[in-house]
Amino acid sequence: MVTAARGMLGMCAYLCVCGVTTSHVPARMNRTIQNLLQLYKIPPKERFNGLPVFSRELLSTKMKAKEMLMSAVLQAYEELLGHMLKQPPPGPPASTSGDDPRVGLNYLLKCVRDLRKYRFQEQDKVLSGLSELRHLQMDNLMVQSKALWELPWLYEEASLLAESGRAGMPNRLRRRRQTLPQARRRRRKP
Amino acid sequence: MVTAARGMLGMCAYLCVCGVTTSHVPARMNRTIQNLLQLYKIPPKERFNGLPVFSRELLSTKMKAKEMLMSAVLQAYEELLGHMLKQPPPGPPASTSGDDPRVGLNYLLKCVRDLRKYRFQEQDKVLSGLSELRHLQMDNLMVQSKALWELPWLYEEASLLAESGRAGMPNRLRRRRQTLPQARRRRRKP
Repeated sequence: MVTAARGMLGMCAYLCVCGVTTSHVPARMNRTIQNLLQLYKIPPKERFNGLPVFSRELLSTKMKAKEMLMSAVLQAYEELLGHMLKQPPPGPPASTSGDDPRVGLNYLLKCVRDLRKYRFQEQDKVLSGLSELRHLQMDNLMVQSKALWELPWLYEEASLLAESGRAGMPNRLRRRRQTLPQARRRRRKP
Repeated sequence: MVTAARGMLGMCAYLCVCGVTTSHVPARMNRTIQNLLQLYKIPPKERFNGLPVFSRELLSTKMKAKEMLMSAVLQAYEELLGHMLKQPPPGPPASTSGDDPRVGLNYLLKCVRDLRKYRFQEQDKVLSGLSELRHLQMDNLMVQSKALWELPWLYEEASLLAESGRAGMPNRLRRRRQTLPQARRRRRKP
């Protein structure tokens, strides 16, 4: 009974998402997904267990890409300095050249690690979410079924995002793009 | 002669970057990097060859993290649908159930691929740049030397970015954080 209700709830949510607000999702895409989903004999209780394949929380981030990239750069530095600490220093032996380079490397590692730990925690979480996307269980029927079910919402979101990115283009450039072909046509037919 | 000039130019750039504008880089970090760099016998011509380890172009992006994540989701869908096309469909054989599911899967794959190809090209480039950060040649002395040289600028950029992120915090929340410990102290000493 609970399972059936959960299934109905999921289907209602699907209809709400796909039937009303998805102006970018072709009707054929919705039909195709519905047909394919019928092949997967997954109990609604498991399909609608609140654990989507693609986290909506992750995709609702307001973060700048630069912040994510900088966090990845700091991660790379941590790894690089770790490697440098493990291998013999490139110069002459420490006894003849003075200070042990490992002291300096450890200091730099601490600086980088602290900056990342105290100022880039949120970015690290988003990077982990991105990394998880690369390790989906592609052959798992549950993952496939859930991902099919999630596709219309994600396709709509991606289309809207692409549109809003274009909407952010400077007005002058947009107007130029819109009017250029027309102006050219006019020139061809004086 | 040219090599020496290039070295001098590099050092001048270093001093400009580290000596004047890097308010977040501790003096000890600068000294440590200078000392470590002396161990690497890398000709200035190679160190300053215009190919940094961490691309400044990549780090100057104005993109939203959500756009990058969405591009990664579309990539994951392409891979997933590719897997689904290669394996036998989950339902009964096509001859008994009607349409071949591969037709539908191919259609969905085309939808996702087209959206990514025509609307997420820039995001794909940034994702590739991010992926390259994970495959640095950590044991390469040239990479290590260049990365050390680039650290002060990146450390400064990361610190500024973390600060600007905090500056973007709603005013009410910032004021609350600033005044809260003071207010508590006042309550303790009436």
